[in-house]
Amino acid sequence: MNDIPTPDAAATFTIEAQDPSGARAGILRTPRGLVETPVFMPVATQASVKALDSDDLRRLAPRAMLANSYHLYLRPGVETVALAGGLHKFMDYDAFIITDSGGFQVLSLSKLREIDDEGVTFRSHLDGSKHRLTPESVIRAQAGLGSDGWTTLDECPPYPCSEADAARALDRTMRWVDRSVPAVAIERAAGAKCLFMPLFQGGLHPALRGISAAHHNSTPAEGISIGGFMVGEEKAATWGMLGETTALLRADRPRYLMGVGTPRDLWDAIACGVDMMDCVYPTRVARSGHVMTYAGKFNVTNGRFRRDFTPLDPECSCFVCARYTKAYLGHLLRCGELAAYRLLSYHNLHYMASVIADIRRAIKEGRFRSARAEFMSRYSV
Amino acid sequence: MNDIPTPDAAATFTIEAQDPSGARAGILRTPRGLVETPVFMPVATQASVKALDSDDLRRLAPRAMLANSYHLYLRPGVETVALAGGLHKFMDYDAFIITDSGGFQVLSLSKLREIDDEGVTFRSHLDGSKHRLTPESVIRAQAGLGSDGWTTLDECPPYPCSEADAARALDRTMRWVDRSVPAVAIERAAGAKCLFMPLFQGGLHPALRGISAAHHNSTPAEGISIGGFMVGEEKAATWGMLGETTALLRADRPRYLMGVGTPRDLWDAIACGVDMMDCVYPTRVARSGHVMTYAGKFNVTNGRFRRDFTPLDPECSCFVCARYTKAYLGHLLRCGELAAYRLLSYHNLHYMASVIADIRRAIKEGRFRSARAEFMSRYSV
Repeated sequence: MNDIPTPDAAATFTIEAQDPSGARAGILRTPRGLVETPVFMPVATQASVKALDSDDLRRLAPRAMLANSYHLYLRPGVETVALAGGLHKFMDYDAFIITDSGGFQVLSLSKLREIDDEGVTFRSHLDGSKHRLTPESVIRAQAGLGSDGWTTLDECPPYPCSEADAARALDRTMRWVDRSVPAVAIERAAGAKCLFMPLFQGGLHPALRGISAAHHNSTPAEGISIGGFMVGEEKAATWGMLGETTALLRADRPRYLMGVGTPRDLWDAIACGVDMMDCVYPTRVARSGHVMTYAGKFNVTNGRFRRDFTPLDPECSCFVCARYTKAYLGHLLRCGELAAYRLLSYHNLHYMASVIADIRRAIKEGRFRSARAEFMSRYSV
Repeated sequence: MNDIPTPDAAATFTIEAQDPSGARAGILRTPRGLVETPVFMPVATQASVKALDSDDLRRLAPRAMLANSYHLYLRPGVETVALAGGLHKFMDYDAFIITDSGGFQVLSLSKLREIDDEGVTFRSHLDGSKHRLTPESVIRAQAGLGSDGWTTLDECPPYPCSEADAARALDRTMRWVDRSVPAVAIERAAGAKCLFMPLFQGGLHPALRGISAAHHNSTPAEGISIGGFMVGEEKAATWGMLGETTALLRADRPRYLMGVGTPRDLWDAIACGVDMMDCVYPTRVARSGHVMTYAGKFNVTNGRFRRDFTPLDPECSCFVCARYTKAYLGHLLRCGELAAYRLLSYHNLHYMASVIADIRRAIKEGRFRSARAEFMSRYSV
């Protein structure tokens, strides 16, 4: 495998500062420019960060985002996105876009899931149509979508799962990573530019972590996508297991923890040496009226804000806080007015970007631990 | 009544050009600045033009809008809006806002409607709570909301309706206009600034038009709000009846035709001498995927646009047409992505503003008839 041309890892990811806790600040060189890490990536599941448009994104200016291969594969289809000139042109936003492999969505959304060593067969949650994914077809799909960060098809085991079953799923997932490597090489030879970030499984089982990490460390890749956490395990145990996992991973590759998380999760995951995260949390809770601030999360439809003519968050510099009051936004939400979903989503993503910027600054200034303690003491859920 | 101080009508409305057809172009002086007429007013039913925010409005730049007294009276309540500093501050947009009286909504939405000579009692469509409106309370409510154009409580008769019943409703409506005049004077004495635009009924019945028009012509007011059209009557007959109505109205007051309409309706109503209109049509049809263009209306979710990577309307200069393709917007709509409702609503309101600008230019250049014929020949519904 070592003769497959890949970008030099050192040329892809530079660690600028590392805190004694394990938290690190770095720079990721991507086909779409530099991305400062740690980074929280908004989720454009179906080529749209829910309720926002590309002008909103340009104002928020995330430099990295996640899109979902499974959803885009089913609708509008890879060929349509390719004909549009790729995801960036399709959705009119230029940033590093990583696509997941669909393994998790096949597990959680589709009506049928038959896995064999070659790949997975499933029925669409939209229309029941039958589809087949293989490690190779998933790489081709990501090349067709034109995303910049590529993951690999994995067998995402259900939770809870016996160690024996997890070992079987991990074995398959690792062989699928191996099959993805030449598939990536083929796309690169055809001109595709990407960071290859194969999917990691097995982290919840101590005996499997070492196997999985060793396999990843020897796979030619620019980064690693850590799946299989936050799937239902007790959250108190997550960070311990995650820390034991990242300790086994080579330090020179960016670590992307998939599907995480809340503001507290950001600090905790980054303390474990995670560099990249994504989550629908800020936009999902926004649509039910939840506002994120440094003092914690509250629901603006609560009756006590009916005549509160102050901004959502007096510490916030976003345009929503500059223009609107809690009373107005609560009114819009009670009325089901669509504008409110956008405005709260924007504020919450602005807040997450602000938290990540704070974290990065704290790491670079060597005060991550105290900054984290200070954040936690203020943030009430 | 003549000793009640009102702004000089000539100082409020200036007709700049009148076409032989009856179409007229003018300038309305309002407490929020000048409004060029004819004008199409977006509808902010619940203090929000559906799916848009105030930055969107600033970009679209409507100089006049409608908000609904009935809805705002029930939610968030007049007092809350007053405490917010009025509608303009509440929704963060500065333009001439006219409020309707709620008479039509009481007829069409509320669960109970008991009308007597003093006012109307109804139950809220939201929670069944019982409410009482009188001509005086409706003026007070509009003063509390801080709107700039005030209408009067009317008895909106159902359609169809016998001439005898319509005459009884008109009689009551006219007496309510008379009672509104001193109520407006009280608010003005307390500092309120408004254009008083009492509500006209009876236009569908030839024998009543003259009575209603004569009453309005002698009422101290800055304009007239024409209700009772487009309530279910045959549309082919509407324009004839409307033209016969406006012919009876004094020329020096702006005529606001409530709840109209489609792009074709704009031309037809303006040909009848109407100066102001409002309608939810552009935003309502947007939410079901309909796009308005000079070539007519189409639904962008239609399968034939799945791989159409051109803008919604190649003739349009709005930001939506600059950024997105039919394929992308159709995809978002098929996915139920909220961003699409906003983007199509924006485009459709931009289109309506463009049509109104064309109409105004045509009137001023004395070519309204030919411009109308040209528009109609291209616009297919």
